[in-house]
Amino acid sequence: MINIIRAAHAELKVRDLGASRHFYVDVLGFHLEQETADALYLRGLEERIHHSLVLRRAAVPALGHLSFRVATPEDLEHAFRFYSARGLPTRWVAAGEEAGQGRALRVQDPMGFPMEYYCEMDAAERLLQRFDLYRGAQVMRMDHFNLFVPNCQAGYDWYAGELGFRCSEYTATEEAEPRVWAAWLFRKPNVHDVALMNGKGPRLHHLGFWVTDALSVLRACDVLAASGYHASIERGPGRHGISNAFFLYLRDPDGHRIELFTGDYLTADPDLKPICWSINDPRRQTFWGHAAPAAWFEEASLVERIDGSGLMELQPPLLLERPEHVT
Amino acid sequence: MINIIRAAHAELKVRDLGASRHFYVDVLGFHLEQETADALYLRGLEERIHHSLVLRRAAVPALGHLSFRVATPEDLEHAFRFYSARGLPTRWVAAGEEAGQGRALRVQDPMGFPMEYYCEMDAAERLLQRFDLYRGAQVMRMDHFNLFVPNCQAGYDWYAGELGFRCSEYTATEEAEPRVWAAWLFRKPNVHDVALMNGKGPRLHHLGFWVTDALSVLRACDVLAASGYHASIERGPGRHGISNAFFLYLRDPDGHRIELFTGDYLTADPDLKPICWSINDPRRQTFWGHAAPAAWFEEASLVERIDGSGLMELQPPLLLERPEHVT
Amino acid sequence: MINIIRAAHAELKVRDLGASRHFYVDVLGFHLEQETADALYLRGLEERIHHSLVLRRAAVPALGHLSFRVATPEDLEHAFRFYSARGLPTRWVAAGEEAGQGRALRVQDPMGFPMEYYCEMDAAERLLQRFDLYRGAQVMRMDHFNLFVPNCQAGYDWYAGELGFRCSEYTATEEAEPRVWAAWLFRKPNVHDVALMNGKGPRLHHLGFWVTDALSVLRACDVLAASGYHASIERGPGRHGISNAFFLYLRDPDGHRIELFTGDYLTADPDLKPICWSINDPRRQTFWGHAAPAAWFEEASLVERIDGSGLMELQPPLLLERPEHVT
Amino acid sequence: MINIIRAAHAELKVRDLGASRHFYVDVLGFHLEQETADALYLRGLEERIHHSLVLRRAAVPALGHLSFRVATPEDLEHAFRFYSARGLPTRWVAAGEEAGQGRALRVQDPMGFPMEYYCEMDAAERLLQRFDLYRGAQVMRMDHFNLFVPNCQAGYDWYAGELGFRCSEYTATEEAEPRVWAAWLFRKPNVHDVALMNGKGPRLHHLGFWVTDALSVLRACDVLAASGYHASIERGPGRHGISNAFFLYLRDPDGHRIELFTGDYLTADPDLKPICWSINDPRRQTFWGHAAPAAWFEEASLVERIDGSGLMELQPPLLLERPEHVT
Repeated sequence: MINIIRAAHAELKVRDLGASRHFYVDVLGFHLEQETADALYLRGLEERIHHSLVLRRAAVPALGHLSFRVATPEDLEHAFRFYSARGLPTRWVAAGEEAGQGRALRVQDPMGFPMEYYCEMDAAERLLQRFDLYRGAQVMRMDHFNLFVPNCQAGYDWYAGELGFRCSEYTATEEAEPRVWAAWLFRKPNVHDVALMNGKGPRLHHLGFWVTDALSVLRACDVLAASGYHASIERGPGRHGISNAFFLYLRDPDGHRIELFTGDYLTADPDLKPICWSINDPRRQTFWGHAAPAAWFEEASLVERIDGSGLMELQPPLLLERPEHVT
Repeated sequence: MINIIRAAHAELKVRDLGASRHFYVDVLGFHLEQETADALYLRGLEERIHHSLVLRRAAVPALGHLSFRVATPEDLEHAFRFYSARGLPTRWVAAGEEAGQGRALRVQDPMGFPMEYYCEMDAAERLLQRFDLYRGAQVMRMDHFNLFVPNCQAGYDWYAGELGFRCSEYTATEEAEPRVWAAWLFRKPNVHDVALMNGKGPRLHHLGFWVTDALSVLRACDVLAASGYHASIERGPGRHGISNAFFLYLRDPDGHRIELFTGDYLTADPDLKPICWSINDPRRQTFWGHAAPAAWFEEASLVERIDGSGLMELQPPLLLERPEHVT
Repeated sequence: MINIIRAAHAELKVRDLGASRHFYVDVLGFHLEQETADALYLRGLEERIHHSLVLRRAAVPALGHLSFRVATPEDLEHAFRFYSARGLPTRWVAAGEEAGQGRALRVQDPMGFPMEYYCEMDAAERLLQRFDLYRGAQVMRMDHFNLFVPNCQAGYDWYAGELGFRCSEYTATEEAEPRVWAAWLFRKPNVHDVALMNGKGPRLHHLGFWVTDALSVLRACDVLAASGYHASIERGPGRHGISNAFFLYLRDPDGHRIELFTGDYLTADPDLKPICWSINDPRRQTFWGHAAPAAWFEEASLVERIDGSGLMELQPPLLLERPEHVT
Repeated sequence: MINIIRAAHAELKVRDLGASRHFYVDVLGFHLEQETADALYLRGLEERIHHSLVLRRAAVPALGHLSFRVATPEDLEHAFRFYSARGLPTRWVAAGEEAGQGRALRVQDPMGFPMEYYCEMDAAERLLQRFDLYRGAQVMRMDHFNLFVPNCQAGYDWYAGELGFRCSEYTATEEAEPRVWAAWLFRKPNVHDVALMNGKGPRLHHLGFWVTDALSVLRACDVLAASGYHASIERGPGRHGISNAFFLYLRDPDGHRIELFTGDYLTADPDLKPICWSINDPRRQTFWGHAAPAAWFEEASLVERIDGSGLMELQPPLLLERPEHVT
């Protein structure tokens, strides 16, 4: 099995690097590690690698790729054989093609997502104790990818069965034979590296970034509002039942959704039982806080094909798109 | 002029003292100073007097009265002459009729609100440093009364002209000759003791209680949700533009609205200019956070007549009831 | 009686404006309202006047003056007569001599402190909701002056008897006839505008600045340490028994002591009884936290004569200089 | 290699279960999962297993054992062979001998510590979202064991070389050939499961428990002081340079030391380089905050022999016991 360490970084396609830089660097306080003619390489304050977020200029906003860190270079070869054997598209990315990163493998996974595996990235200066540089949301690190998939049970089987993810929490339908409507799946031992939600897909629902405490989230709201980004706050602050996250959802200048959150827990023990939530439990989505707006359920980022031929087409979800209590 | 010190306490009529006790004492953490056959006398953790909130059993939920602390017993006599001279109803309340309180004067003010003036109240044990007793929202003290009045300009003139309140912030219409749509008025030098908002009145919109910091507000949300009061959170947490309050609005078991807030500022300097907000400034009501639900604009507590003859009738507001951006 | 509104600002003499600017503005986040050839005019984020702290270049560090805001211009005339009648030195300061300030009166008070009364100061832009400008300790406003006086009882009598201050808390000796060892005195209704502590005087022990919450204090520690000011943290964070302040004491580049604190309470009710602490109660000074270092009890800023003739001589205290439990 | 998941629980011998219960349960807010005639079984709020701390009555305070969770039952057999092959004492503990726990292996490790390996423990009710039960310090979970060892280099070699721990941070002497003076070692991917510090050993310096945020630490201080445990706060709050922990050190009624902390970071990436601190860097121990008291460097809990024959003898450390800057 490919030894995946964790969800490590993402590449978003954006239309205006200046607007993105203002939002992510000046206001939210991401650290700008490197700026090239067509991209910004950002990271959180505790991250000691070159980047966890790449913003690359493009005509159309989209998800470029999501990247898993693997344990060894052999895992890259293993991944190549694994995906090739299943007839899925792969593409090698040369060292340096993405700044700061060694040789990597891109694949289009069975759900249609552009995923990357990498093993080496340049080390970067430690900023965790450079409190004098902290600004805005004081984002610490990339935590997870949240994905809309048309067939959540199939996605669960892929991640849990083929890629060795464990499940911390999930949502099931209230049918006689319950089906998985959403699942929180992890490799590093917290709540998740990947969440799958039933919906039109493949689409990226959001990127989740970790912050130290709840006041970092409130400070982010204050700074966003004071900086003219009042309308970028889509949902929250509030607390999810599922995952226990104290959350805030933002929409960046291209509409990509970012979650800032805290309030996770340790999932290291191998026999820890997944928590099952009924899809209609009103505290599942919103333990407290305003109901999610319709856009939160409906809008998401389209994803690119790794061969450069454009965007993946969307498939409708197998199950009901939204829980009853929010309709 | 009557020397009013501050907004000091309120009496709410409630239908079920057990339900009220659970909500206010067990969950929100108000200190229960005294319990009688028909009433609960509560206070916040920093308050060193007998009560700042009276919950009295009644068949119909309503506001019993709002009470101002005055400087001296002479102020009570002065108030009696002042209201009598204007033909407004008054009633003396004997010492002890409200537990722990000296002789007091009740009046029906020009807007129809049942107001009380008092000068003496029993001292109570200091709990501020009994951190072992802190629970729930860790409410510190009564701060202000927020009132729906049909004619806000007239209310402003009354409080500022006759009662010596100063204005910290106000909302004006965008007419050629702007009219006051809402006003934040104070005697103690923070943002307000009394807020007036344009609306069908007389009605009590909410009682505002001060908490120490934003995390007290979030903890209140967590404890409310864990205790089954998920639906009691009507609005927030969020930040108001006007007043800068970091707020949370709750509806108690009888529908009375309580605000928990922090984030005030000092208004002691006599020449501090009131801040004017346009009614249509989207950051006025909600600097950030979800838009207020319709109920927040429409629902409020009816108020009693001080002669015991029932509830005051309502008058429609002179101005538009709700800002454009929330319709 | 002079109608004093509150402790409003202070002038510190410093040797190196660049060093002071780095400490106060770049690191602690005071707002620099104006910079002249020989002075910096600073204020906190909620203050809407020109300054609450003046740092003026001088050969020797000292307290230049402490300034009370009074209600009306007549109070200035009143103050002039009041101090003159008692044979105390006075000096008029012309409008604009201190930037942004109207005509003011300086006096050398009976304890030897250089005090100022002023009534007019230029309004300044409101920054409270410019959260994008918040930095460092996020200092909100000037709160109080803490003074070493040789005869605390006499100081108490002066402030309470002649200047109309009320007392919120005090420390008394454990003698058969207890004497006041320290007193917290206020005009604006929180714990204090002026604190008097038994000690060699006249000296300024510290200036107290208000911050919004405890996390602002912790953030200040992080930013100070990250900026090379590790050694500037003299005491704390901790909580005082007296005043309930959650505190941090800093020494600026000239050794002047600054307190950042939160955790105050309202003292508006006229009959609120002062809280008496025994000098040997171990929770009086330090409700919790490390014992204060010797320097905190021994070192303080010398004060200037208002006639420009240098520094006031020091007198030894009448009572024991330090509580037993800290010796 | 034994597949160790994490530092999971500890057993402390205490003289008075009532006193321990008051301190840990009533004041600090540990959840009491089970109480037997001679022991209390406690856990943190996010832990979903029977216990992470056992307090067992004994005549002499000591560390009973420290316990690692392993991946599978086979790891227990593996551990038995591993320790036996090295001539180290072992003892099987039958299922249920420690309440709620399956069969386990106790060993006396090369440094003399009584360590336990276990694989099965009863699941317990999830309390993470029972915010109505949160009290005191709101302890979330066991995080790490901090140990005094006479030969830190040997301890490092054992944990890193034989048990597969990785190193996140370490302290080295300033010699021409630097030696390890302290090391932070982990299996779960945060800063540590085990810390080794140069000192007279084997002794347990402290047990580290995770709390959600800095305000939980401050609340613990407030509640401890209000409950008469003022003197139980040995050190802090402050921030360590090493580990970045925002910390508080307590001494329980038997003198055992407990750390409450937050402010960790993720160490999942396999090539993350350990951070090296010079032993004389003043920010290593105390990034900011008061210097550690002598007791913090000198006092620690003695450890038991797994064969029930009493306490391990102590050996002096090979290196200087305390950094220069704290002498």
